[in-house]
Parts: sequence; structure tokens; C-alpha cells
Amino acid sequence: MDLRKHIRTIPDWPKPGILFYDIMPLMADRDAFAASVNDIAERYKDKKIDYIVAIDARGFILGSAIAYRLNAGFVPIRKQGKLPFKTQTVTYDLEYGSGTLEIQADAIKKDSNVLMVDDLLATGGTMAAACQLVEKLQGKIIAIAFLMELKELNGRQKIQKYKISSELVY
Amino acid sequence: MDLRKHIRTIPDWPKPGILFYDIMPLMADRDAFAASVNDIAERYKDKKIDYIVAIDARGFILGSAIAYRLNAGFVPIRKQGKLPFKTQTVTYDLEYGSGTLEIQADAIKKDSNVLMVDDLLATGGTMAAACQLVEKLQGKIIAIAFLMELKELNGRQKIQKYKISSELVY
Repeated sequence: MDLRKHIRTIPDWPKPGILFYDIMPLMADRDAFAASVNDIAERYKDKKIDYIVAIDARGFILGSAIAYRLNAGFVPIRKQGKLPFKTQTVTYDLEYGSGTLEIQADAIKKDSNVLMVDDLLATGGTMAAACQLVEKLQGKIIAIAFLMELKELNGRQKIQKYKISSELVY
Repeated sequence: MDLRKHIRTIPDWPKPGILFYDIMPLMADRDAFAASVNDIAERYKDKKIDYIVAIDARGFILGSAIAYRLNAGFVPIRKQGKLPFKTQTVTYDLEYGSGTLEIQADAIKKDSNVLMVDDLLATGGTMAAACQLVEKLQGKIIAIAFLMELKELNGRQKIQKYKISSELVY
């Protein structure tokens, strides 16, 4: 299936000069959504994945369906202040200023196999921070799966020590 | 399976006096997560559901796995400013002030069958607003599925014209 025809490009969003790749038409199409989940799950079905860890909020959409498909648990990483209970936090640099991500402190059992999932690899900064959180909890990151990758932003550099897959490269 | 033992209660979160029901331990447990998705999907598997519509962000976690399980499309409803492209919006009353929700204007085909999904039925205000958005797009709301319901808040009143299911009632 050609997933690409279900991705919509939106100029100047969220700000002028940015070409945004909108995955919502893909998610809303039952066949394209199922194919995306199946394609990613197929890559990792023999890796004994214990947890899918996904990043708020678009990452949740693919991540939880992949967790269901692989019979794994689902663990969210969210922006600061959104998760109850004890958390681990990491602060990382953004284009202007910084951001903080959190994971629940007991979310992942030590030495368990984790597949990280997000919709888009852009600069890689958010995913690098998310991986730090999982490693603080002593999870083993088996790989990082993206639906899309914007190659010219060179985001693989920030997460180069991990195995990485992308279904669509732009 | 007793899903209840995977729900964690957290006093005074997000503010003093609130007892928060934390579903994250349930999501992180592969068997409890799969059972939750299967229990909800089982109720609606013969209803020819075209789309799952879920509310940002915890609703995405259950919603997208249910969409995958039912071979439906997935459509998100988000807070204002998070969705690109043309949107429909609805503003609704909160305890203090108001909130605005959005859906992409072309997300749902006219007369298609929609199952609304969210993690929690509390006051029902957010879900009532979400249903308005789906009806603006002329989707047919077949039912609303919650994982949990806080019965004493009487949230069913605001959405009483719809069929409603909850897996866990507190």
C-alpha cells in the first residue's frame, strides 16, 4: 500500500516557513492506518518487545495500536505536569528555550525490552530525551520506530547509537 | 480479568481534594491493556464502526488500539491550535472558564458510523462537546465507550441521548 498518498502537506504550519506533514488523513483511513501499524509491528515481532514507549500526543496514536498488535504494554512520555505519581524527568534544548519530558518512575521493569515509537523524526531532540528517560528506568531500547523521517534535518545524528526504522522518508 | 487492580488512585491530583484514577499501570500491563481493548471492541464489533473518535491525549491510547482491533479509522479531537488544516471548533464550559476543542473539517465522511472513546467519564462536559463536533461533520454517533466512569459526578446526564458503555464504574 502506498502510505504516502495519505500524508497531507500543509505549508506554513505551525509557523511560517515550515512545511508540515499531516498524518491525520492516514490515521482516518482504516486500511492505511492498519497498514502503518502492521508494517512497523512486522519489523519487531520477533524482538520480544515488553513495552512500547511513545511520546505525547501523536506518538500515542501509532504507539498504542502497535502495543496491542505486539501484545506489549504501553507507556507514555508526556510534557511536564501531565503525569501523576512519581516521575523521572529530563530537560532538553529546543530551537528557542528548553522542554521537559516525564515518565512515571515505575512504568518500566528493569532490563525489559522497549520499542520507542513516534510519528516523526525531525531534529531528533525530543526522541533523544525520551530515550534518556527510558534508560534512567533501566529499560533496554531495542529500537526506535518512526512513521516518517525528514531526512534533511539529520535527526538520526542525535540518536545514532540506536537501531532506527522509518516507513516513509522525505 | 480484574482490570480494577491495575488502576491506581492518587489523592490530591491534579489539585487538592481530587482523587485521581491513574490508568497508566493498566496500560503498561500487556494483559490488562489487551483485555481493556478487547472488552470494548467486543461490544461494538457488529456495529460496522467506520471511525473511532478519541479525545486528546489519554483517549488516544485506548482509542487507536480499538480502531486497529475493529479495522476502523482513527480521528483525534484536540484542544485548540493543535490540529493543522481546516477545523470545526466547539467551545464549552469548564469548572472555571471555558475550553475549546477542534476536529479536522474533513476527518469524517457524512453518515459514517462513529464510536466515541475516552478513558474517563467524569462530568461529561468534554465528551458532550466532542459529540457536537462529530455531528457538525454529520457523523452518526453509534455509541460512547469509556474505560471508567465516576458515577457520583452524574456525567451521563450531559450525553444521555447516546448509548454509553463503561468497563469500570466507581
